[in-house]
Amino acid sequence: MSSAEVPSKFHGWCAVSKDSIEGKFVWQEYEPKAFADDDVDIKIMYCGICASDLHTASGGWGEVDYPQVVGHEIVGEVVRVGSQVKHVKVGDIVGVGAQNDSCLECVQCKASRPQYCDNNPVGTYNGRYSREGPGKGAKSYGGYADYHRAPGHFVVKIPDGLDHAIAAPMLCGGVTVHSPLVQYGAGKTAKDVGIVGIGGLGHFGLLFAKALGANVTAISHSESKKADAEKMGATRFIATHSGSDDDFAPYKRSLDLIICTTNDASMPLIGYLSLLRPGGHLILVGAPEGPVARELPAFPFLFGNVSLGGSAIGSPSTIKEMLELAAKQNIKSWIERRPMEDVNRVIPDMNASKARYRRARFPVFVVYVLVNTKNGGKL
Amino acid sequence: MSSAEVPSKFHGWCAVSKDSIEGKFVWQEYEPKAFADDDVDIKIMYCGICASDLHTASGGWGEVDYPQVVGHEIVGEVVRVGSQVKHVKVGDIVGVGAQNDSCLECVQCKASRPQYCDNNPVGTYNGRYSREGPGKGAKSYGGYADYHRAPGHFVVKIPDGLDHAIAAPMLCGGVTVHSPLVQYGAGKTAKDVGIVGIGGLGHFGLLFAKALGANVTAISHSESKKADAEKMGATRFIATHSGSDDDFAPYKRSLDLIICTTNDASMPLIGYLSLLRPGGHLILVGAPEGPVARELPAFPFLFGNVSLGGSAIGSPSTIKEMLELAAKQNIKSWIERRPMEDVNRVIPDMNASKARYRRARFPVFVVYVLVNTKNGGKL
Repeated sequence: MSSAEVPSKFHGWCAVSKDSIEGKFVWQEYEPKAFADDDVDIKIMYCGICASDLHTASGGWGEVDYPQVVGHEIVGEVVRVGSQVKHVKVGDIVGVGAQNDSCLECVQCKASRPQYCDNNPVGTYNGRYSREGPGKGAKSYGGYADYHRAPGHFVVKIPDGLDHAIAAPMLCGGVTVHSPLVQYGAGKTAKDVGIVGIGGLGHFGLLFAKALGANVTAISHSESKKADAEKMGATRFIATHSGSDDDFAPYKRSLDLIICTTNDASMPLIGYLSLLRPGGHLILVGAPEGPVARELPAFPFLFGNVSLGGSAIGSPSTIKEMLELAAKQNIKSWIERRPMEDVNRVIPDMNASKARYRRARFPVFVVYVLVNTKNGGKL
Repeated sequence: MSSAEVPSKFHGWCAVSKDSIEGKFVWQEYEPKAFADDDVDIKIMYCGICASDLHTASGGWGEVDYPQVVGHEIVGEVVRVGSQVKHVKVGDIVGVGAQNDSCLECVQCKASRPQYCDNNPVGTYNGRYSREGPGKGAKSYGGYADYHRAPGHFVVKIPDGLDHAIAAPMLCGGVTVHSPLVQYGAGKTAKDVGIVGIGGLGHFGLLFAKALGANVTAISHSESKKADAEKMGATRFIATHSGSDDDFAPYKRSLDLIICTTNDASMPLIGYLSLLRPGGHLILVGAPEGPVARELPAFPFLFGNVSLGGSAIGSPSTIKEMLELAAKQNIKSWIERRPMEDVNRVIPDMNASKARYRRARFPVFVVYVLVNTKNGGKL
């Protein structure tokens, strides 16, 4: 396909106001950034729905410059590449995660950690490009749409053998947990790994921690998700119930690394820390709207030699590594495919937490993936 | 000297009530633990005064089983060794830090990290021995005394060339900062190191961070300690003043590691975290009586990829390594020697923070070391 076939304007489900997540996304035209020599245009086949989409579309994480096209777990076919792009070509199936651009020049960018760019890590939506070039100053628009334009540095080829819809939610949700699992040595220096929360992020935590060779413990409020957690790879389950010391005491100092995916601002942080062996790490990847701790004491840190850290999404190189691991080990996201045109039914479902865990006799966790059948996505 | 010359009862400056630190230590007899095959008896020449001594003697850190002999920066001459002790002999000059015993069998003890013993890390004072043997159940007594009896595993030889009085405060204060500096790669993976607080611990932080090859930044409330900090090795000084973002902004993401020695419960923790590069660590070694943070938010951890940890004292093997470094590089603690018999004058001075930083025109920071001239200590 030549570039002539890519329209100059794109269409997408736009959030135009804070109530968009109540079934009020609007299908309308918008203007993507001007095409640069290092850009890639993608015909969108799949887009996972991430909790961040809802926080942003609704303005829950702060003011938003409407209209916004959310969605940052994008998979599709390359339909145009700039002259500087060498790693993908027209016809390739590629993915874009939650980051679209960065300065490419700072220490972090040069160390393949552009998500921590010192200057301007640009989100796939709700961002503004700032590098010199024709797109400077333009807004970024995400994947609930027909096309997506992205700087090629943030476009990753989907490896052969990995289902394209299953790959989609890995691009943000998957790498958000895979990245700290790798950074903190899961399966290597950290043999015993705990995952707090069995939701969109947590299910990837269990799947990838197991794939990396760790002994996996699922940590959840109640036993309701135990059966699913075991299917995802957990060999031990800790129900924290009230969050009192008694719930944690039997498991004290039994983990080397905990990835904490919960958004619950009342999480029992000190209890989680007590599960770590000295030298262990508790890494936050969820972002509660409130503080993660009140009255944080020093002694658990001192006498436990434990640390509390955080991690945000993952770099394109980590995404590539994760997708290759998923292809090799046949790791499957737990997804449900829904037509992209039904977004105004799907999002309210998810917003009501139905997607996270259905209130059924045999609860089944799923992540929704929007399917753009017009562009070749398969339901 | 044969064992016959070691008295069966020891004498020391005993804390007998919460007001002991107001000049009411009492010189009296007490019974040390029964001598075991792996014990060492030490004729005390020097004992540094550590802030922990005051917290414990006064009951500030919780209930205390009086009488207590505090002091855990002990240097003296070996006068008796048990049959199992091979690494020191009668006549050697040795030191004992803040830890006196541990189970010696758990994963942490076997990994030379007995300060994080899974079972019972026994303090040099205010502890009770729990290993099988003649001393099981006995109280531990520290160094404001004529003799000290310690399990040999926690007795370290003072290397040749290191002044014995100068070595004393390194045994707790020194290793408390040296241990995390080494654990987190100061001078190696962590080239740029910050030390918060220029007090007993902080001055060692500056001295040892420099000795380990790091670029050292001193971080203090005001500029008053700048000249001293530079003498101790700092090449950059950050005054945090009010703790507002403006005070930190010019230095954002400029450090790889921060050792936080302050006891100030109102410390600007989020400001300190903003000084770290992604992947950086803020390590607490001071123990405020209140919480170190209220309303701890998640975002600085996520977007900064920084972590908050803690570290307690140091193992005998780390003490040995530190003393050898100090001997080799001629590192000198900033000390003032005071006769041990004057303890009831010295402690009230220190309690009033005069020792930490004198209110003089040219302030000079010092750590007090009690000198037992009867046993050969030199004023």
